[in-house]
Amino acid sequence: MTNDPRRQKQLQKLVQKLGLPEHSPVEWKLLDLALTHPSISAEANYEQLEFVGDAVVRMAASELLFETYPNSSVGEFAAIRSVLVSDRILAQLAQSYGLERYLLVSSSAANDFAGERSRLADAFEAILGALYLSTHTLELIRPWLDPHLQELAAEVRKDPARQNYKDALQEWTQARYKILPEYRLQETSRVHGTADRFTAQVWLHNQQLGEGKGRSKKAAEQAAAKQALLAVQGKQSEQD
Amino acid sequence: MTNDPRRQKQLQKLVQKLGLPEHSPVEWKLLDLALTHPSISAEANYEQLEFVGDAVVRMAASELLFETYPNSSVGEFAAIRSVLVSDRILAQLAQSYGLERYLLVSSSAANDFAGERSRLADAFEAILGALYLSTHTLELIRPWLDPHLQELAAEVRKDPARQNYKDALQEWTQARYKILPEYRLQETSRVHGTADRFTAQVWLHNQQLGEGKGRSKKAAEQAAAKQALLAVQGKQSEQD
Repeated sequence: MTNDPRRQKQLQKLVQKLGLPEHSPVEWKLLDLALTHPSISAEANYEQLEFVGDAVVRMAASELLFETYPNSSVGEFAAIRSVLVSDRILAQLAQSYGLERYLLVSSSAANDFAGERSRLADAFEAILGALYLSTHTLELIRPWLDPHLQELAAEVRKDPARQNYKDALQEWTQARYKILPEYRLQETSRVHGTADRFTAQVWLHNQQLGEGKGRSKKAAEQAAAKQALLAVQGKQSEQD
Repeated sequence: MTNDPRRQKQLQKLVQKLGLPEHSPVEWKLLDLALTHPSISAEANYEQLEFVGDAVVRMAASELLFETYPNSSVGEFAAIRSVLVSDRILAQLAQSYGLERYLLVSSSAANDFAGERSRLADAFEAILGALYLSTHTLELIRPWLDPHLQELAAEVRKDPARQNYKDALQEWTQARYKILPEYRLQETSRVHGTADRFTAQVWLHNQQLGEGKGRSKKAAEQAAAKQALLAVQGKQSEQD
């Protein structure tokens, strides 16, 4: 229990919203901490729980993928996981539970609208950390998080173009070789706005994995990462 | 149980070596898979379990750091965790348990001595995946893994210079901002072997975090990462 009965009530409401049973073994002090922004307290805030929660959400996503898609390659796992654990998705989930209403944050920090997405994603991870540490299992997490992850994983599989290919490729090279891909950029046309203004190559060790063009550096890198990812996944499924 | 009684005996011996009780609820088929290299079977090998195990070891390390160093900053957590989950450390742990004797691998792959370290690290992660999935908790893992992680974490804290600063910085920027630092390299001297031949800068968003020099590109980047890491950690502890 927290010392403040109003806060306690608020937290209980959130737990109920997550669909957890009324007498769930939640460590309320941890949950309270998970919903305390660093602008409220420099010492007692969600940062450490967010660090744990970052590992928890990877764990939950990995387990779900392992159980749901036994025939998928690890390349595909890595690509899907990178989407599931992304800030964008975590903030989206946080929003769907109205997390901003439970987060204690100083008014000056709250006015930083640009930072709202990362605040929500961070607090969401911290909640996962607090719920994990309450039982040292995923039992307070998977019942409500799994359906979201299932749906998202199915969407990503259906429409891989929604993916962030750079993230996905990075996940794959990290998982497989523990190193990062390297991008080499060239300005191939000086004309602003042309679709092939930039050319990016992506390399791993001494091997070129892919090449792509784009209007911006970022777009060229994404195109190169996409080609690389399709190439390595194709190679992998040939081996399967 | 596996179908092969000799293999079953071998796996039981390994579990005993880990110090787990005789009748531990191990899913033997998963453990068997965790110790099967892709060169033996393209379909039934350790790759998927390694993917899960990669998340498991991050989880175990995060939980341990959270419990052991309640007053440390997340920057320090991230730096230590990056060492604990590194290939080098995982291969070292695998070796200390003589894992190579349990790993099924084709003779041609076994002769690839250069790949031994990553084979061992991969199989070690896969074992963690198999043991986690046996109970959906860390109860078959933490009893024997924690003492290793404790000792390693204490070593890293005592002598941070042993760290890989690039990995540590990357962990920190990923944990905090979900982006990677960017290195910019210059050859500042053409003379081979001079200590300041290369100069590296490390940038995050549009801010330079650190600069370093070195005999090689890698050394210059490590020096830049070190400066950046000390700067951001210093800044963080001032805030604390």
